[in-house]
Amino acid sequence: MSEGMRVWALAGIPEVRPGDDLVALVGAALDAAPPEQRPLDGDILVVTSKIVSKAEGRVVQAADREQAITDETVRVVATREHAGGVTRIVENRLGLVMAAAGVDSSNTAEGTVLLLPLDPDASARALRHGLQQRHGVRLGVILSDTAGRPWRLGQTDMAIGAAGVAVLEDLRGTLDSHGRALQVSQAAVADEIAAAAELVKGKAAGRPVAIVRGLGRHVTRDDGPGARTLVRTGPDDMFARGSAEAYADGWKDATAHDRR
Amino acid sequence: MSEGMRVWALAGIPEVRPGDDLVALVGAALDAAPPEQRPLDGDILVVTSKIVSKAEGRVVQAADREQAITDETVRVVATREHAGGVTRIVENRLGLVMAAAGVDSSNTAEGTVLLLPLDPDASARALRHGLQQRHGVRLGVILSDTAGRPWRLGQTDMAIGAAGVAVLEDLRGTLDSHGRALQVSQAAVADEIAAAAELVKGKAAGRPVAIVRGLGRHVTRDDGPGARTLVRTGPDDMFARGSAEAYADGWKDATAHDRR
Repeated sequence: MSEGMRVWALAGIPEVRPGDDLVALVGAALDAAPPEQRPLDGDILVVTSKIVSKAEGRVVQAADREQAITDETVRVVATREHAGGVTRIVENRLGLVMAAAGVDSSNTAEGTVLLLPLDPDASARALRHGLQQRHGVRLGVILSDTAGRPWRLGQTDMAIGAAGVAVLEDLRGTLDSHGRALQVSQAAVADEIAAAAELVKGKAAGRPVAIVRGLGRHVTRDDGPGARTLVRTGPDDMFARGSAEAYADGWKDATAHDRR
Repeated sequence: MSEGMRVWALAGIPEVRPGDDLVALVGAALDAAPPEQRPLDGDILVVTSKIVSKAEGRVVQAADREQAITDETVRVVATREHAGGVTRIVENRLGLVMAAAGVDSSNTAEGTVLLLPLDPDASARALRHGLQQRHGVRLGVILSDTAGRPWRLGQTDMAIGAAGVAVLEDLRGTLDSHGRALQVSQAAVADEIAAAAELVKGKAAGRPVAIVRGLGRHVTRDDGPGARTLVRTGPDDMFARGSAEAYADGWKDATAHDRR
């Protein structure tokens, strides 16, 4: 534990285009890295989901952005009007609650926007298998994306895809130093790893891949269930609707009820 | 950037008791660390807020836990009944929205619970000044605590106190590699640093302090406004009430309105 972890951004990933082979691009960058930065057993690669979207051709014309958000939406959570239009915070088809359903218009070619990968956990598995075979080591792979949070300013990165990483550390039943059960039950390890990686990648620096070394205890032999298991929506979701929307729903239903 | 960051847990912090001098305890542990782990200019210390609470004597008898939560509460956001009672998710006096107002019953002496520090930003400043003077280097200090998030399973660490760290990286106006403004406007750097530190501290291992090296660009000369600036409540808060609570409010108000 006192060895801790090292996190660095991989240099030499070119601009990714539709159809590119990410295993080859990331693999070549790993080959070109200084010897001490070549992949080792237990390393975790954190890949900005944007380059996966680009490689997979998940590109839409900017003029179709609003329709793309609608298409990616399973359920509207809240909407907010502002000078530039209306922001929709929605649950998307991946179960992620995000502004604009995660449709992204930064770092994309002029006139286009990017959708999230079709199946980020599958993309993470494919990257993992390809890179493990290419480099002969056991790796974890996390696909990250950036999102806001209720009650906090600023955005953080979270894990939207994962392979070979235990995304939750289950502490239920673990005893603290006083012999009592821990109040914290599950640490969202994959989200914390995505956040750590963002600190070295930055947003504008063209460094879409980070390597995390020292967390091999979270790297698993199997691919595991992926980041989808971090989603908590459905009956357990106490914030399934924005406050204003839920209030309006209650008002409307009471009025309809009174009229019966 | 390719040097990246290193994060490790500091060994040798004893069980902290009310009245303890944290500068002396952390300072002694830093003195005893291997030479390459002694503090350098630009290092950030991430301190679990729990040991600050203990040093500050923020201890309450467990029998008074429910009253303590009430006392720490500014506003109830949502409540949930379960087998063990009722969990209250509230905005506490620090502006943090947390289950049980952040009152903690893990890793505390039998029969007691811990309140959050009275003023975590002030505690971070005091630690920073003491350690900077003791070690002759410029440091950042973050006080971290663990909390759940809407829509995601598991807990992550966030920054509840900060001194000498630019808690938000303002990217508004920054251009992406295509010359367009970034969609992400502000990175919650302090929260991401707290999350990174949690990965090496763990919950039960008795390692309440981590050191982050390599993010000196976020360490400021002044103490800065602290982690309180990361709080987003008030008119901007789209989730000021849980969905069920907001719905019930709307129903009740419509009914009262109809009766007028």
